[in-house]
Amino acid sequence: MIEQYSNPLSPEALQQIDAYWRASNYLSVGQIYLHDNPLLKEPLKIEHIKRMLLGHWGTTPGQNFIYVHLNRIIKQYDLDMLYISGPGHGGPAMVSQTYLEGTYSEVYPTIGQDEAGLKRLFTQFSFPGGIPSHVSPECPGSMHEGGELGYSLSHAFGAVFDNPGLVVACVVGDGEAETGPLATAWHSNKFLNPVNDGVVLPILHLNGYKIANPTVLARIPEKELFALFEGYGWKPYLLAGDDPLTMHQQMAGLLDTVVADIKAIKKQATDDATAARPCWPMIILKTPKGWTGPKFVDGLPVEGSFRSHQVPLSDPSQHPEHLTQLEEWLRSYRPQELFDETGRLQPQLQALAPEKEKRMGANPHSNGGLLLQDLRMPDFREYGLKLDGRGMKGPGDTLVLGKFIRDVIHLNRDKKNFRLFGPDETLSNKLDAVFETTNRQWMAETIDTDVFLKKEGRVMEMLSEHQCEGWLEGYLLTGRHGLFNCYEAFIHIIDSMFNQHAKWLKVTAGLPWRRKLASLNILLASHVWRQDHNGFTHQDPGFLDHVVNKKASVVRVYLPPDANCLLSVMDHCLKSRHYVNVVVAGKHPSPQWLSMDETVIHCTKGIGIWEWASNDACQDPDVVMACAGDVPTLETLAAVSILRERLPELKIRVVNVVDLMKLQPESEHPHGLSDTDFDALFTKDKPVIFAFHAYPWLIHRLTYRRTNHNNIHVRGYKEEGTITTPFDMTVLNEMDRFSLVQDVVDRLPQLGNTGAYLKQEMKDKLITHRNYIRANGIDMPEVRDWKWKG
Amino acid sequence: MIEQYSNPLSPEALQQIDAYWRASNYLSVGQIYLHDNPLLKEPLKIEHIKRMLLGHWGTTPGQNFIYVHLNRIIKQYDLDMLYISGPGHGGPAMVSQTYLEGTYSEVYPTIGQDEAGLKRLFTQFSFPGGIPSHVSPECPGSMHEGGELGYSLSHAFGAVFDNPGLVVACVVGDGEAETGPLATAWHSNKFLNPVNDGVVLPILHLNGYKIANPTVLARIPEKELFALFEGYGWKPYLLAGDDPLTMHQQMAGLLDTVVADIKAIKKQATDDATAARPCWPMIILKTPKGWTGPKFVDGLPVEGSFRSHQVPLSDPSQHPEHLTQLEEWLRSYRPQELFDETGRLQPQLQALAPEKEKRMGANPHSNGGLLLQDLRMPDFREYGLKLDGRGMKGPGDTLVLGKFIRDVIHLNRDKKNFRLFGPDETLSNKLDAVFETTNRQWMAETIDTDVFLKKEGRVMEMLSEHQCEGWLEGYLLTGRHGLFNCYEAFIHIIDSMFNQHAKWLKVTAGLPWRRKLASLNILLASHVWRQDHNGFTHQDPGFLDHVVNKKASVVRVYLPPDANCLLSVMDHCLKSRHYVNVVVAGKHPSPQWLSMDETVIHCTKGIGIWEWASNDACQDPDVVMACAGDVPTLETLAAVSILRERLPELKIRVVNVVDLMKLQPESEHPHGLSDTDFDALFTKDKPVIFAFHAYPWLIHRLTYRRTNHNNIHVRGYKEEGTITTPFDMTVLNEMDRFSLVQDVVDRLPQLGNTGAYLKQEMKDKLITHRNYIRANGIDMPEVRDWKWKG
Repeated sequence: MIEQYSNPLSPEALQQIDAYWRASNYLSVGQIYLHDNPLLKEPLKIEHIKRMLLGHWGTTPGQNFIYVHLNRIIKQYDLDMLYISGPGHGGPAMVSQTYLEGTYSEVYPTIGQDEAGLKRLFTQFSFPGGIPSHVSPECPGSMHEGGELGYSLSHAFGAVFDNPGLVVACVVGDGEAETGPLATAWHSNKFLNPVNDGVVLPILHLNGYKIANPTVLARIPEKELFALFEGYGWKPYLLAGDDPLTMHQQMAGLLDTVVADIKAIKKQATDDATAARPCWPMIILKTPKGWTGPKFVDGLPVEGSFRSHQVPLSDPSQHPEHLTQLEEWLRSYRPQELFDETGRLQPQLQALAPEKEKRMGANPHSNGGLLLQDLRMPDFREYGLKLDGRGMKGPGDTLVLGKFIRDVIHLNRDKKNFRLFGPDETLSNKLDAVFETTNRQWMAETIDTDVFLKKEGRVMEMLSEHQCEGWLEGYLLTGRHGLFNCYEAFIHIIDSMFNQHAKWLKVTAGLPWRRKLASLNILLASHVWRQDHNGFTHQDPGFLDHVVNKKASVVRVYLPPDANCLLSVMDHCLKSRHYVNVVVAGKHPSPQWLSMDETVIHCTKGIGIWEWASNDACQDPDVVMACAGDVPTLETLAAVSILRERLPELKIRVVNVVDLMKLQPESEHPHGLSDTDFDALFTKDKPVIFAFHAYPWLIHRLTYRRTNHNNIHVRGYKEEGTITTPFDMTVLNEMDRFSLVQDVVDRLPQLGNTGAYLKQEMKDKLITHRNYIRANGIDMPEVRDWKWKG
Repeated sequence: MIEQYSNPLSPEALQQIDAYWRASNYLSVGQIYLHDNPLLKEPLKIEHIKRMLLGHWGTTPGQNFIYVHLNRIIKQYDLDMLYISGPGHGGPAMVSQTYLEGTYSEVYPTIGQDEAGLKRLFTQFSFPGGIPSHVSPECPGSMHEGGELGYSLSHAFGAVFDNPGLVVACVVGDGEAETGPLATAWHSNKFLNPVNDGVVLPILHLNGYKIANPTVLARIPEKELFALFEGYGWKPYLLAGDDPLTMHQQMAGLLDTVVADIKAIKKQATDDATAARPCWPMIILKTPKGWTGPKFVDGLPVEGSFRSHQVPLSDPSQHPEHLTQLEEWLRSYRPQELFDETGRLQPQLQALAPEKEKRMGANPHSNGGLLLQDLRMPDFREYGLKLDGRGMKGPGDTLVLGKFIRDVIHLNRDKKNFRLFGPDETLSNKLDAVFETTNRQWMAETIDTDVFLKKEGRVMEMLSEHQCEGWLEGYLLTGRHGLFNCYEAFIHIIDSMFNQHAKWLKVTAGLPWRRKLASLNILLASHVWRQDHNGFTHQDPGFLDHVVNKKASVVRVYLPPDANCLLSVMDHCLKSRHYVNVVVAGKHPSPQWLSMDETVIHCTKGIGIWEWASNDACQDPDVVMACAGDVPTLETLAAVSILRERLPELKIRVVNVVDLMKLQPESEHPHGLSDTDFDALFTKDKPVIFAFHAYPWLIHRLTYRRTNHNNIHVRGYKEEGTITTPFDMTVLNEMDRFSLVQDVVDRLPQLGNTGAYLKQEMKDKLITHRNYIRANGIDMPEVRDWKWKG
């Protein structure tokens, strides 16, 4: 089934493309081994070799091969192309290529186009304080880090959404292809609009091996391999071989074919709005792992085997024959033909690279902040609920937000630079209003009864959190805006993707040539406290713990207590830059607390005393009742109302936290309160009863350095739950109003018998509650219909 | 491409199987709606309806259909079969089925086979304190929870490894099929040995819709659908339709065909050891979502649409026409034909279910603890390193462990009840020794140069952490033992899977009829502190934070400081039951501290004073130097040796922590030290400098209630790192010896000028270090070759 492609290269072009490839391979081997003698002007000696040999050769020559051929078609067809290096450790290739095309030296002038520059280029690689062996943010042209595997294809699709002129060549490693996220990412073609979006050209690099094993896709019959990609809805082209000159001709011919396919698809889609989902081309490139490297080392096969994954000749200093072999290997690329005496690439080879921003290392889409434009934002205040009494029931906080998001979408409809992502939960999370102005983008088949499914839409839904997150990351990395809405418990599915993105943000923030991106905004609705018909499996508020482990400069966590606060917070998040913002909000009808004017003040501060709920007259309270999150705020205020009614002389202060990072010391987080401000809110010595949305120890972890920490008593989710009523969830975790009242009593021995009676009454209430819900399946009216009386 | 299958059912059998299906559908609707009048003996009234209507109808009738047909082939072919319900919310189906076959009432006698039992069965569903709408641990026959999506197929394969007589029918939802983990799990067929392992029969339930969207696989051409599964290496059979009687005949015929295929494959594999990987059958079953439910509600289509996902008739109490429609729907199943006056299923229908342990609800594999046998364990002490001086360099801790694991595998080779799982990292993690006794199991193609790849082997490697974790979970849930080895940073990929498994353990521990399982053991090698050729992306020790959020009764974390301790810890973990054990260990040559006798004492205690490193003579120290993890222990002891040399009068106590849970209060964790014991180790008032493997705040979160908490100063990973030397990683995070010495000086003002001089010297050392590694790429000899002098 191996096809034959045309051989379009003239003899001269063939020799030049091969020379360019040799140059890049030479630079790649040089990075792994050399810290001196970069042009091999003298015979190779041990002292020219790095003392620690680290790096990855296996995938590198194949990626160099792909890159030089992509350069050719960029020039030939004037393409706007990005390169994504999916395999884990293709660093040497992309660094070599961006150096050869000139972008590397433009970004890092000390690594110039001369012998000294070459020496520095080689030395920095896999060297302390240098660059890692995978493609990293330091590498120009990169928008996808090769450290963790599985997200290249989702990133590629994210990059081309709303970039109709862009082609992303996405090299997928055959090891990476075994990961779950990558395995489902092939289905992204059902979500790509051929008119309004760009093109992803996947190149499965079937070099056969991972670290120590063959790859699955390299060991199935070719018939299955083709069927698999046809089944995924692609048109696969296979190119296999190891003879360089034959392969150059065939690759050039294949890419000509593929470009023709792409142009035909684009044209047909533009000409015929009713055209069915196209079958985009993809390439399966089968070349030996460690191609052109040593064939055997110490008698064992290396080229074409897993043994070429890292450093094929591992210890020249101890094995003289390795040194000889290394020199032969390096000289096999004939560097003296490729570089002039000063170390500069020969001009006729330089001419093979595209120019200026057409160079893949200089494509502005890979440094998305360059292209980023502010969103046109509606005034969030206009979407607020009019507060008709503290605690009035709202329609569901996310439902209110939905209207705001709808208009964000509407106002930016021409710019096409905002999308909403979610795993089939946009309606479930009550963001329905967005469908008044847009649809879900869906290129697969449709039938008459479908709703909100169109070929073009701002809402992207596939039942894969990995896919949603990956698409959004790719979209942001190329300079656009977005929001991911997800069930709270299942956001852990992308824990590791969040890690990688947060690290990308941290590193790029320190690179002056990188521009800041729009923040990654994650809305967690359907949260832990509402489990009416899910259950224990849907209960995990621990994403917040995970997030705050990352560098304070890039993470933000918000817990708006009501709809108006949610609007304010989301407005802030959508305008912010280079953060990961996590917002937790409820979707069920729930009490509302602040007018819009109060909201603006409260959310600007991020934390504050709710004076209308307090009776300490801004003086010394007896107890501080703190809360963060919608349900904790409700239970706190219900507890406060019991306490104020039953113990009117007790001075209570209510503190609400919207911006969780306010709790950390200012030395730890830029949002952190000073100790003076913290003490002013939480006192230096009074009991603090803190009802918290997530696991209670997170509050301790954030506040353990505060003066009054020893008096802070936190209630939150402690892994108790099942399918049950909203109120019962709080009871099971002792965060309910009746338990909070008991907590207060326990910490105020001065209440004496009065306290003891109240405590007993609260215990009785809990028993009554339990019996009631067991009999009726719903909460007691006194809880369900509770109203704040301020 | 829809095939026609034989119609093997006699008219009587056809009627009976349809009646059984109707009975199960009736019970399913009953669960969603009724809290009284369970046999519809009187006309349906509002008061018979639950006050909160919650649950999921959509997938239920299709799953009931599958289950009744599986019952038939179990009886017909005497199969040993398990049922896995992949779609999120198939709870009503599996509960109905296990009730009808009798297992439910055996496990829960109060839910008997009579009218009162039916009433209880209905009431408990989606009811506070009852059972959730997804298949849950409470349901007999379940070994896979339907709460989170994507792991059904990996679990199914885990269940059949080493169970050659077992068939797992794995119903995969077409929504679930969009997740990454599920998308790659289809490739599990390349790892299944047809002789030694059992059979997975996947049934893709193509009912077309998720919560609110169509599914991708339902909206691609049939040709692509077939190609996809052929590409995955399966033999797909499609059955589509909605006429019940036709569908019964066809499903019966199809299952006869599939059983014949399976028997033929098994026979061929047994007869011919050289047979190639077989093409196992799989079924694509296309039936309407909400099949047999209301066709229209309020004028909108429901059957065959996403609107049947949850409760089709949402509010009978407010809409009288809904009540009428509900009664018609319930009566359409003709309950009076199915149940006798007392509520018991008619005897001729009862006879359709398999008997005793052949019933899928009673299959002991679904309650793996029933089948679990202890491992034969070698004596771990015999694998220990002989301590030839404190700090002697070992060969790499995991390398030592490898020999122990090798012999665990060897000793249990006949029982075949232990496997080692890993994403292509078993060699990289230095567990090489296992290949002296076993291989990687691999049924895909092999070539001559392959190593350690055989059709049978105890090592399971695929480059998907999801797959490894899912296989292992399935293997444990069915009563076997295992170990998952993984790079530390990338274990976050399975955060959410860990959550679900930990929750399963917690819930099953509370069900008296469930037996305890072998623990889920996770070995994290290639940890954060060794980044010689990876980098920032590979640095995240936060899995520990994630783990300790789960219920203390099911999680354990170990940080063995050297190889002997690693052996002791792993021995303990492999013998333990019903925990998740997380063990972090190094793979590089590193110092060894304890003799085997000392190891046994230290690891049994889990925490202790290292007297040989201390000079406080078990009295009042001036400072406590605590450490947890191999690198922190090294840096702490190096700091101690500087301090003891330079400040000989300073009384230092060294405390090493192996079992992290020892730090928590005993009220929080069963391993937790009492306050008295904690104070005895850490003092009540002396400075504690704590060097910790992971994020430092985890130590604060565990110890914030301890007397001396305010004096505990923790160093650990704080998101600073790049590709660099081992020692430089500690420097970047201020956990190196020179920084720890400064921390001590800072906390002991009494040291006066002596301290100040020492501190300046340490600062100078750090500058020297920095310059040295920038110049040489390796650590200073004084650090590299440092030896403890005790």
